[in-house]
Amino acid sequence: MDRLQLVNSHVSGNNSRTNIVASGDIGLIGLAVMGQNLILNAADHGFTVVAYNRTVSKVDEFLDNEAKGKSIIGAHSIEELCANLKRPRRIILLVKAGKPVDAFIEQLLPHLEKGDIIIDGGNSHFPDSNRRYTELNEKGILFVGSGVSGGEEGARYGPSLMPGGHKDAWPHIKEIFQSIAAKSDGEPCCDWVGDAGAGHYVKMVHNGIEYGDMQLICEAYDLMKRVGGFTNKEMGDVLAKWNKGVLDSFLIEITRDILYFNDPTDNTPLLEKILDTAGQKGTGKWTAINALDLGMPVTLIGEAVFSRCLSALKDERITASKKLTGPSPITITDKQQFVDDLEQALYASKIISYAQGFMLIREAAREYGWKLNNPAIALMWRGGCIIRSVFLGEITSAFRENPDLENLLFHPFFNKAITKAQSGWRATIGKAVTSGVPVPAFTTALSFYDGYRSETLPANLLQAQRDYFGAHTFKVLPGKENDFLKKDEWIHVNWTGRGGNISASTYDA
Amino acid sequence: MDRLQLVNSHVSGNNSRTNIVASGDIGLIGLAVMGQNLILNAADHGFTVVAYNRTVSKVDEFLDNEAKGKSIIGAHSIEELCANLKRPRRIILLVKAGKPVDAFIEQLLPHLEKGDIIIDGGNSHFPDSNRRYTELNEKGILFVGSGVSGGEEGARYGPSLMPGGHKDAWPHIKEIFQSIAAKSDGEPCCDWVGDAGAGHYVKMVHNGIEYGDMQLICEAYDLMKRVGGFTNKEMGDVLAKWNKGVLDSFLIEITRDILYFNDPTDNTPLLEKILDTAGQKGTGKWTAINALDLGMPVTLIGEAVFSRCLSALKDERITASKKLTGPSPITITDKQQFVDDLEQALYASKIISYAQGFMLIREAAREYGWKLNNPAIALMWRGGCIIRSVFLGEITSAFRENPDLENLLFHPFFNKAITKAQSGWRATIGKAVTSGVPVPAFTTALSFYDGYRSETLPANLLQAQRDYFGAHTFKVLPGKENDFLKKDEWIHVNWTGRGGNISASTYDA
Repeated sequence: MDRLQLVNSHVSGNNSRTNIVASGDIGLIGLAVMGQNLILNAADHGFTVVAYNRTVSKVDEFLDNEAKGKSIIGAHSIEELCANLKRPRRIILLVKAGKPVDAFIEQLLPHLEKGDIIIDGGNSHFPDSNRRYTELNEKGILFVGSGVSGGEEGARYGPSLMPGGHKDAWPHIKEIFQSIAAKSDGEPCCDWVGDAGAGHYVKMVHNGIEYGDMQLICEAYDLMKRVGGFTNKEMGDVLAKWNKGVLDSFLIEITRDILYFNDPTDNTPLLEKILDTAGQKGTGKWTAINALDLGMPVTLIGEAVFSRCLSALKDERITASKKLTGPSPITITDKQQFVDDLEQALYASKIISYAQGFMLIREAAREYGWKLNNPAIALMWRGGCIIRSVFLGEITSAFRENPDLENLLFHPFFNKAITKAQSGWRATIGKAVTSGVPVPAFTTALSFYDGYRSETLPANLLQAQRDYFGAHTFKVLPGKENDFLKKDEWIHVNWTGRGGNISASTYDA
Repeated sequence: MDRLQLVNSHVSGNNSRTNIVASGDIGLIGLAVMGQNLILNAADHGFTVVAYNRTVSKVDEFLDNEAKGKSIIGAHSIEELCANLKRPRRIILLVKAGKPVDAFIEQLLPHLEKGDIIIDGGNSHFPDSNRRYTELNEKGILFVGSGVSGGEEGARYGPSLMPGGHKDAWPHIKEIFQSIAAKSDGEPCCDWVGDAGAGHYVKMVHNGIEYGDMQLICEAYDLMKRVGGFTNKEMGDVLAKWNKGVLDSFLIEITRDILYFNDPTDNTPLLEKILDTAGQKGTGKWTAINALDLGMPVTLIGEAVFSRCLSALKDERITASKKLTGPSPITITDKQQFVDDLEQALYASKIISYAQGFMLIREAAREYGWKLNNPAIALMWRGGCIIRSVFLGEITSAFRENPDLENLLFHPFFNKAITKAQSGWRATIGKAVTSGVPVPAFTTALSFYDGYRSETLPANLLQAQRDYFGAHTFKVLPGKENDFLKKDEWIHVNWTGRGGNISASTYDA
C-alpha cells in the first residue's frame, strides 16, 4: 500500500478492524502540543502515524490543520487505532502522568496481541513505570517508559529521548526513536537506557539537574544585579559571552534572550516585572527524595528544590525583609574580574552537580539492578533537551573513554577544570557571603567538593555523640587499632566513666 | 490491694484472668534497655507496672534482678498482661518500629475492651501512626503514638515524652506520663501534642533537628581542628566555656566530655581514633523528605542528612583526597576572636535550624489538619531529650508570649541574637571557604537567612526560563502591572519573537 494513499486519511466505522490494511508504523494517544509535535516530527521522518485523542473532535481538528498533507491517520476509537497499526503494534501514550496512563493501558489491552509495545512518553514517576513494566510483562505486552525532553520545540524538531523497559521492544522502536530524536554531531540523542523504569528514572535525574542548572544561573544573575549593579543589557552581554565558552548551553542562551527582552509597553526589561515565586512540577523533588532514599549526597539539586520552596513564601519574605537586617553589598571595583570569577563559580558548581547526578545514577543502577550506560545517558542529554550543552559533550567523551569512571571529578578534563575554577569560585562565594546575597547552590557545591576531597570528616565526633547518648557503637579508624579498639568490631565506650570503660560487640547498631 | 503485696509478684497460670485482681496501672511490652528503664522509672513514681516480653525468660530475668523489690508484675503472656491491668487498660509498646508494632496490636486486640489504650512508644514513622490511629479507632481502642527521647538514661530518670493520638486517651495517661517525664523548672517535659500521628511527627522533627545540631557541632570541631590547629584539650575547654553561655545544652556538654576523653591505652584522645563514617536510623531522612513533600525549605536538616551520606563514602573520599586539590588553611592569629566568631556562627545557624523546624511543624499542622501547640512542643524538647538546652527555654518563652508567632526570627530575642551573631557568622564562613574546610550546615543556614530576608529573589528569572522553554507562564510582580501584564493572570510570552508577543491566560500551569 502506497504511503501517499494513506496520507491524512480518516478511517471510520466500527467494523474497521477486518476491512483495513494496517499501515501505521506507530500510534500516538494524546493530542496536546507535545503529542501533535511528536507526530509531525515522525511524519517528517517518513513514518506513518496513527493519532488518537480522548476528545475525538481534536483528532479531526488536527487532521484538518497541522497534519494536513502528511502521513498521519486519524483514529476515532482505541479499536481503530489498534486496527491501523502494523504488528507488533507500537503505541506511544503522551497523556498526563498518573491514572490516565493506567486508564489508557486498560483500554488498549483488549485490542492488543502478545508482543505489542506500549510506550509511556509522559512524565511518569519511575516506580509507576516499574510497576507497569511488571504488570504488562505478565500479559505478554512489552512496556517502555521513555523520558521525552526538549519542550514543544524539541518534540517537533528533535527531542532527547530516554527509553527504558522491556529490552525486546528496543529493536522494534529503535529506528523510529533514533530518527525523530535530536542529533549531536550526527549521533542521535536517544539510546536504550535499561530495564523497567530506568528510562523514566534517567529522565527524573535529568529534570533534577535542570533544576540545579537553573538555580545556578539565577544565583549568578542575582549577584550581578545586587552586588555588581549590572543593568539587564550588561548581564545579557555577559551571558552572550559565556555562551561562547565552557558554559555554552541552551539555558545560558535563553537567559541571554530573557535578559535582553524588553516589555513593549515601556521598553524596560520584562524580567524585572515577573513575580519571583517559582513553580515546580515535582520531578526535582522526586530526585531529591530519591537521593535521600539511596543515601547519596545530591546536595545541589536538594538546595535548588528548597530554593523554589523559599521563593514561594513571598508574603513571609516581604515581612522578613522589614524585620531582619543584613550587610550592604560590597563595592565591585573590577567588574571584569567579578564576572570572570562568577563564570568559574558557575562552571565549578555545575561540574559538581553533574558529578552528583552521575553518582546517584550509579547508586540507582546498583540498588535497582539496572545496567545503565553512562556514555549513552550523557549523549542523550547532549542535545534536544533543556540541559543540552557543550559541557555534556565533554561528559560523553569522558564516559566513552572510561565507562566505569568512578567519578566525573576524577577525569583529567573535569579535574583540571575545577582546579582552575577554584579561586574564582571561592572568591565569588566570599563576596556573596559578605554582601548578604544568598548563594545556596554555589555554597553547597563547594561544601561538597571540600567534603568529598577530605580523607577525614568530623563524622568521628558524630559517631562518638551517638555512642555517648544512645550506645550506637562505632568502629576504629584504620591504623588506630589496639587491644581495646579492634578492627571491624562495633565498639561501645562508657564515656561518662572517665576510666576508659570500653566494650566491644559485634552487633550492627 | 496493697501495693506492697504485689511487689515483684509473678502471676502465672492459664486461668489467671478470672482469679487475679487487676492492679496494674500500666502495661509495657518490650524489655530491651529502654523498656526496662521506663518501667523502673514508672515504678519509682509509685505506679504498678505489668511487664511482658516476647521471649518470656527475659521477664523472669528482669523480675529477679533490676525489678526486684519494686512495684513491677511479670506477665508470661499477652493474656496475663491484659488481665492484670486496671480499666481502661493502658499498654505501652516499646518494640522495633514496623511490623512488630502491628503484630503486637493484633495479639492484644482479643484481650482488650472498648476504651482501652494502646501506646506505641517506639520510633514509628508518623504515617504508620496515622493508620493505626484510624484502624484502632474503628474498633473502639484508643491509639496513642508517643515520641520518647533521651536515650537509656532519659528513659530511666526522665525522658521527653511527646504523645499524640486519640484525645480521649490523654486524661487516662496524663498523670503517669507527666510523672515519669523530665522536668524543666518544675514543669513536665510532656504534654498532649495533637491528633493521630502528631506525636510521632513531632518526634520525627525533633530527630531531624538533632541531626542538624550534631552536624553544626561537627563543623565547629572541624574548623577548630583544621583551621585553628587546636588540641582536643583546647577544644574541650572551648566547649566547656560555650556550655556556660547561649549554647548551654546536652550536646555541647557531651561533646566537651568526648573531647576530653583519652584512650587509656596510650592516653591520647579517643575521638581521633574513631572512624569518620556516620550511621543513621532514618528519622533525619524522614524529616528532610517530609520537608520536600510539604514544600518547606528545611535546608539545614537536609544538609545534615546529606553530610552523613557523604561521610559514608569513605573509600571514595580517600581516593578523592589524592586526586582533588584545594587551598591550605589560613593562619589564625587571634584564636580568641576565631572562637568567638565560631560560637556566633554555631548559634546563628542553630537559630535558623529551629526556625525552619517550626516552619515545618506549622505547615504540617495546616496540611494534616492538626492543632499543634508550639509552646508545649518547645517545652517538651526543653528537657529530657537529646536536643535539650537553655535555648529551648527561650523558644518556649517566645511561643508562650505569642503562640501564633509567624517565625522565631521575628521574636525580639532571636532577632537581636541573630543580628548580633551575623558578623562572626559571615567571618567564620569566609575563613572556611578560603581554607577549603566544608561547612555545609553553616552556609545553608546563612543562605536561608539571606534568602528569607530578600523581598526579591531571582526566581523571576526561573519563571521566565520555564515560560521560555515550556510555556509554563508566570505572574506579574505587584506594582508592575500594565495592559499586557495583568494582575493575577498567568502570562505567557513568545520570548524568541523579540516583538513582545505576550498573551495571557487564566489556566493554572
